[in-house]
Amino acid sequence: MQNESKILSTEDKAKLIYALAESGIKNIEITSFVSPKWIPQLADADQLCQMLHLPPDINTSALVPNAKGYERARSTNLSTIAVFMSATETHNKKNINRTIKESISVIAELVPLAKTDGKKVRAYLSVVFSCPYEGVVDQKSVVQLCKELIELGVDELSLGDTIGAATPNMVLSLIDKMKTIDTLNKFALHFHDTRGMALANTMAGLEAGIATFDSSIGGMGGCPYAPGAAGNLATEDLVYLLQSLDIQTSINLEKLIHCGQLAQQLLGKELPGRFLKASLAQQNKQKPAC
Amino acid sequence: MQNESKILSTEDKAKLIYALAESGIKNIEITSFVSPKWIPQLADADQLCQMLHLPPDINTSALVPNAKGYERARSTNLSTIAVFMSATETHNKKNINRTIKESISVIAELVPLAKTDGKKVRAYLSVVFSCPYEGVVDQKSVVQLCKELIELGVDELSLGDTIGAATPNMVLSLIDKMKTIDTLNKFALHFHDTRGMALANTMAGLEAGIATFDSSIGGMGGCPYAPGAAGNLATEDLVYLLQSLDIQTSINLEKLIHCGQLAQQLLGKELPGRFLKASLAQQNKQKPAC
Repeated sequence: MQNESKILSTEDKAKLIYALAESGIKNIEITSFVSPKWIPQLADADQLCQMLHLPPDINTSALVPNAKGYERARSTNLSTIAVFMSATETHNKKNINRTIKESISVIAELVPLAKTDGKKVRAYLSVVFSCPYEGVVDQKSVVQLCKELIELGVDELSLGDTIGAATPNMVLSLIDKMKTIDTLNKFALHFHDTRGMALANTMAGLEAGIATFDSSIGGMGGCPYAPGAAGNLATEDLVYLLQSLDIQTSINLEKLIHCGQLAQQLLGKELPGRFLKASLAQQNKQKPAC
Repeated sequence: MQNESKILSTEDKAKLIYALAESGIKNIEITSFVSPKWIPQLADADQLCQMLHLPPDINTSALVPNAKGYERARSTNLSTIAVFMSATETHNKKNINRTIKESISVIAELVPLAKTDGKKVRAYLSVVFSCPYEGVVDQKSVVQLCKELIELGVDELSLGDTIGAATPNMVLSLIDKMKTIDTLNKFALHFHDTRGMALANTMAGLEAGIATFDSSIGGMGGCPYAPGAAGNLATEDLVYLLQSLDIQTSINLEKLIHCGQLAQQLLGKELPGRFLKASLAQQNKQKPAC
């Protein structure tokens, strides 16, 4: 939601989150405790967390950039905090104005704080395959960074194809290397559908043994620097693929379509998710007959 | 192009076809000899074929619905005619107003005519996975129809997921059955990206041993009955996937982007292909930095 220009009310955000919970999703990233100056859309993080009363089996998380953000997150009942950094120096600098070393220090400071408070830590590592500034990313350095993050005690590590440039072979190759660090249930894959590869990459990730995949409702997200480009992998597309592969999830696809529809209504725009488009067209009794 | 409302001039169509040939594509479906009453966009099929002078290593084809259409195709130098029918009675009736039996008779009449004239025959079988009227399609009846079409002498049989409802497991299962009919190089897969599954299904098709995949530039196509729904699998997305899997093609991806750009200019609209969108955004120096 951080990329959406239309600022939603806290109530509307809560409405969407309740709908997602109702669809059977068990892990929801609620908001971000970055400075409101950076992302005005998420300035209401504290109020939103206070307002929500979700069932206890739902794992809730929010982004935490630093100790100041952690102080805000601490007073919520979020079960997880999400820390983040990039796999390349340039992207890390442009995105969060830190060197990789500085980011590692911040995360090293946040992990024990969260653990003491009984919160889990998820780490996002961005641009693990390809960087818009440095090109194809050296996998050895990615493995090294992942190793450091796991050693710091993060519970889950999400590997981000931030600009949607990964391909199935790149996924297979990277996950193969992750096995040398820890068991694969520590890792998640985070695909953007910028070049339409997200589901093909998901197939590769599944084949390689990954069981956790990030997605966003309707494919919300996108990138402010690439107008027209698709955003995150759409949750509906992901769930439709998983169902078709006889992989069980807790998620009800029909209810998920309702969430997508709600997200479109709230944002006042069409989202890029394809399964959502197809389902809504069909609901309108426009049978795709060609 | 049959679904595009803006009628292109014959010259513009030729321009796009030359650009496709220049990108290294070796199989191009040029037009259709259906009645201009049905599809005014393709009323210039005869003039377009006469106008084109493509290198001899490019296989050109056009749709031929009946003997009258064949008479028109006959006087061209197209190397292939494409016949078509659906795997379900209802879709065949709604789409081409014939029973399946009648369609088989027409194809039985056309194949020897084409062979006598030294032309190859490609057959399209639509809705082989799911039909908008009859739901999930019985694979036994699909296998039976494919068998009949192969026995009639068609050189290649393209299996169409016309409404984009196939899933990887459905693809694996159907192709497994095709092995009982003929060698797999007789079969092509024709995916629509309506629910975003086209590339995941392509991965399954490749895994199953299929080497021919239909696609359209920029994902042009779509379906007049499902506004907003994506069309055919975009050629750029397909080629990007194939390249990433180290599968060699004759196609230059950069030149393909030029074709997509040209198609958008000619049609005066944005096409749904994702790799195209991402590439054009990048060309505009809008580095995707998120």
